[in-house]
Amino acid sequence: MASEVAEKERKILVAVDEGEESSYALSWCLSNIVNENSKDTLVLVYARPPRAVYSTLDGSGYLFSSDILASMEKYSHEVAECVLEKAHRICKDFNAIKVETKVEHGDPRDVICQVAEKLNVDLVVMGSHGYGLIKRAFLGSVSHHCAQNLKCPVLIVKKPKSNDGN
Amino acid sequence: MASEVAEKERKILVAVDEGEESSYALSWCLSNIVNENSKDTLVLVYARPPRAVYSTLDGSGYLFSSDILASMEKYSHEVAECVLEKAHRICKDFNAIKVETKVEHGDPRDVICQVAEKLNVDLVVMGSHGYGLIKRAFLGSVSHHCAQNLKCPVLIVKKPKSNDGN
Repeated sequence: MASEVAEKERKILVAVDEGEESSYALSWCLSNIVNENSKDTLVLVYARPPRAVYSTLDGSGYLFSSDILASMEKYSHEVAECVLEKAHRICKDFNAIKVETKVEHGDPRDVICQVAEKLNVDLVVMGSHGYGLIKRAFLGSVSHHCAQNLKCPVLIVKKPKSNDGN
Repeated sequence: MASEVAEKERKILVAVDEGEESSYALSWCLSNIVNENSKDTLVLVYARPPRAVYSTLDGSGYLFSSDILASMEKYSHEVAECVLEKAHRICKDFNAIKVETKVEHGDPRDVICQVAEKLNVDLVVMGSHGYGLIKRAFLGSVSHHCAQNLKCPVLIVKKPKSNDGN
């Protein structure tokens, strides 16, 4: 039975963000879940802040000038690029794994759950905080929300405090 | 790097109880995490109800007669045996895996966290409810507690409602 496992095509969603914990979760998943001979596909999901946060308040007026909006959008885009580049670098060490990326605007809780459901993934992997420090402050625990709401298995990985190198 | 994975000796704690969900979590773990060539050890952990629940109220008097206590103890022991026997049967389908069992009296939240810490396990696997229907009612979510308090990665597996056979 176990030999069949390697042949199974699984879709594993890994939630990535700016934090060290999500990088650790990704590495842990690659070391412990993904098999060299498997046909697993890793779907790296990054949730960009909802546009509404820095966009129009209503249809008539702008909260920020278009310049500020454009630079905020650019910054958010660069952060997303940076996060995904880092994640790809981590995946590179583990060859023979198919990697896809998804960047969506929105609350990470919704983004992760929606993508997981849409792609019918076999597993969702995330750091215990689920999302970066700043977002966590007003979002609460993303991992708790996902563990409660997702139908598929959820792996919550905590970065060890004592050992930064691993 | 991935080829090294199979050689790594990992200790994986799987929380088992009377519920179908814990059986499903165990099967999922065996199919998706454990590698045929790995030297993984599975530690099946079952938490028996704390003795205090049906034992003395204080040092001086008994709440139940010794007959009732003995039969309750016997029943609790038989349930534990039954749960572990079922878990072992599931593991049997996946040969070449080392299986250990731990039965401890206590709140499953404490039992799981204590055993995980004591044995320094690499991963804890559990159903999303973590423990049986009756206990869940007054214990709250065991999986949530464990995800918050454990230092190691926690895999929470939900049994699909639509597909009992898988």
